[in-house]
Amino acid sequence: MRSDCVSIVTIGDELLLGQITDTNSSWLGLSLASLGWNVVSKYTIGDRVDDITLTLNRASKDAAIVLVSGGLGPTSDDMTLLSIAKFFNCDLVVHEHTRKRIKSYFENKNRTMSAQHARQYTLPEIAEVLDNNVGTAPGLRIHQKGILFYFFPGVPTEMKFLFNTYVLPSLKSLNQERVTLFTAGIGETDVVDTILDIIKEFPRNISIAYLPYHGGVRLRLTEVKEKGSGHSKINYFKEKIITRLQDFYIAENHNEWATIMGELLKERGLMMATGESCTGGYIAHKITSVPGASEYFLGSVISYANEIKENLLNVSSHVLDTYGAVSEECAREMLAGLCNATNCDIGIVTTGIAGPGGGTKDKPVGTVFVAVGNKERILVQKFSFRSSRAGIIEHTFNRGMHMIYKFLSKG
Amino acid sequence: MRSDCVSIVTIGDELLLGQITDTNSSWLGLSLASLGWNVVSKYTIGDRVDDITLTLNRASKDAAIVLVSGGLGPTSDDMTLLSIAKFFNCDLVVHEHTRKRIKSYFENKNRTMSAQHARQYTLPEIAEVLDNNVGTAPGLRIHQKGILFYFFPGVPTEMKFLFNTYVLPSLKSLNQERVTLFTAGIGETDVVDTILDIIKEFPRNISIAYLPYHGGVRLRLTEVKEKGSGHSKINYFKEKIITRLQDFYIAENHNEWATIMGELLKERGLMMATGESCTGGYIAHKITSVPGASEYFLGSVISYANEIKENLLNVSSHVLDTYGAVSEECAREMLAGLCNATNCDIGIVTTGIAGPGGGTKDKPVGTVFVAVGNKERILVQKFSFRSSRAGIIEHTFNRGMHMIYKFLSKG
Repeated sequence: MRSDCVSIVTIGDELLLGQITDTNSSWLGLSLASLGWNVVSKYTIGDRVDDITLTLNRASKDAAIVLVSGGLGPTSDDMTLLSIAKFFNCDLVVHEHTRKRIKSYFENKNRTMSAQHARQYTLPEIAEVLDNNVGTAPGLRIHQKGILFYFFPGVPTEMKFLFNTYVLPSLKSLNQERVTLFTAGIGETDVVDTILDIIKEFPRNISIAYLPYHGGVRLRLTEVKEKGSGHSKINYFKEKIITRLQDFYIAENHNEWATIMGELLKERGLMMATGESCTGGYIAHKITSVPGASEYFLGSVISYANEIKENLLNVSSHVLDTYGAVSEECAREMLAGLCNATNCDIGIVTTGIAGPGGGTKDKPVGTVFVAVGNKERILVQKFSFRSSRAGIIEHTFNRGMHMIYKFLSKG
Repeated sequence: MRSDCVSIVTIGDELLLGQITDTNSSWLGLSLASLGWNVVSKYTIGDRVDDITLTLNRASKDAAIVLVSGGLGPTSDDMTLLSIAKFFNCDLVVHEHTRKRIKSYFENKNRTMSAQHARQYTLPEIAEVLDNNVGTAPGLRIHQKGILFYFFPGVPTEMKFLFNTYVLPSLKSLNQERVTLFTAGIGETDVVDTILDIIKEFPRNISIAYLPYHGGVRLRLTEVKEKGSGHSKINYFKEKIITRLQDFYIAENHNEWATIMGELLKERGLMMATGESCTGGYIAHKITSVPGASEYFLGSVISYANEIKENLLNVSSHVLDTYGAVSEECAREMLAGLCNATNCDIGIVTTGIAGPGGGTKDKPVGTVFVAVGNKERILVQKFSFRSSRAGIIEHTFNRGMHMIYKFLSKG
């Protein structure tokens, strides 16, 4: 058991079947890492009492804090409360405060509480009950044998509310410093070849990890501050790596292009627009997933059909007939049309074949043209991606953002 | 150990830190479930030899097949091969075939193999090596004590290629039947209240699970076919539940609205377009994430800024000044403008406040107007969602799809 460590347990058959992708645990991982806590293990198991108790036992050997989510719903396939009773050998008793809270939760919505919700207010007697303001299932905190167990519902909004309200304020920030360097246009092996001699100089308490994404690698440096580890050296090595990586280095402490692009556009006071064919709105979606995107994002024309390219982006039938929609010529006209239609300061357009169908010998699946620019200057690039439909769309987004970044850096 | 069961182990500090969301295991879960195999456990651990060997030991007690991904990269933070050597007590030896394959992989790209890649062709002597046609790291198969271990790289395209090529063909389909019923506009508790008496009639070999999503619940029925379990009854119960759920039931064996909408539009021969403000392209992205979407999707106008609403969707300055962009009046004009601009047969527009900023007393965060319709008929609905930015966007997508579904069902 490690004292600065957390183990995460998620419960639910739907997570094992793959019908739901678990986003809770990556969110928890990021929140905890920002305070210097380490997630050492994650377990996902189904709604079965024996599996749950076995896993609680395992997780309690890994870490000082065990965060459990899922299986607290009102229906008969939810087994977490029964498992708690068995694992901690305690009784489930009616929790009057929670019964009233759930009852008024439904009254506020002009509905009556169903009999099933009795499961949600019949709680382990040894647990401290944590009020859930955004749903019915309460959170639970149980302190046993030096381990702190938290139990939360699996619904992301409810889990996040309970974590932010009851766990985060009680965690102390640990003595660890982290920095992430976002690079683009370089692969994992080449990054390592480029900076290997710098890494070999690292003292024992500094480490590096490589986090590849479609289009580049993020480098994460971690410095553990121990007694006697002396003066912090993480910034010294960070600067050395940034200098060595030259143009491949993009930004510090960013995980994705959408936030990097947002800051760049705000800094320059530029308004952006997108004209998307093969990415089908994905670029606009990524850009607008960042709060406050309206400060720098105007909108888009998603021109999946050729009629939309002609009518809204003013692409000529000559270009479509002669070169086809997937061509440099079409990308250029789309970009010019986008700039006219939206009056954007910087635009990006995509046209390509995301597959799995639609490929030809000349233009196989993965052929994508991206144009970026404004009314004065246009930059076009052709890509040949080898990936799934979702992968090609993701690649196009990342490479397109890199093109805008380079376009604006030269401007 | 259960003979029809699989355990999944994913390795990588980046997964624990949350900088990467693990989509591999939900993809594996879906693939395996379609053949009737059960994933009984999933473990995620960091790149440390002791943690990896401990977890291999645990996983081998859960299931007949253990699928491991991650930690096979060329860099020094990749620990899976060393862990295999320790766990199976075997040597790592140069695998000449793989050395040549990686060498020519780079030659085909006009690059030379870096010295680091020696890690990727120095392999456990007891492993059967599985060629990776889409990357450098090979897959490995090790059969020990009745358990089949597979080791794959963590890069999704490579993992999927190896799984589809080497694992899938060797799995037998198990004797289990599953059906998923997609519902909309009803919550988990209400679904259970509505069909509780039917569930109580289930024989021992039929079970039900509830998989809520933003806007409804999916019901998954599973029938295990045992010796002597007699005539299959899953269809009998399925029909009974569908009849009882009436209008809340939407479709069978669909996991999400995007595919349901695609089939509905193809069946009716209708072309769709979207005009998105607060959803920022998410609806277009979801619709176009389905292969072949160009058969029924024309495109979109993403009108984040008011100028785009005016210039491309012909929303009047009168409406924007008098009622504001987040209003029923604006939604109506956006829809009319969208139908004119795109000539779509069915359109959907969204305008609202996704937050976290931008809310007012009259129009708090989560206020969203959705309009669906065509040139003849428009249906508008106002929603008040209480969720995160991403949650409000997801809710709007799901409720909007339900509105189109109802609009077309009445037409």
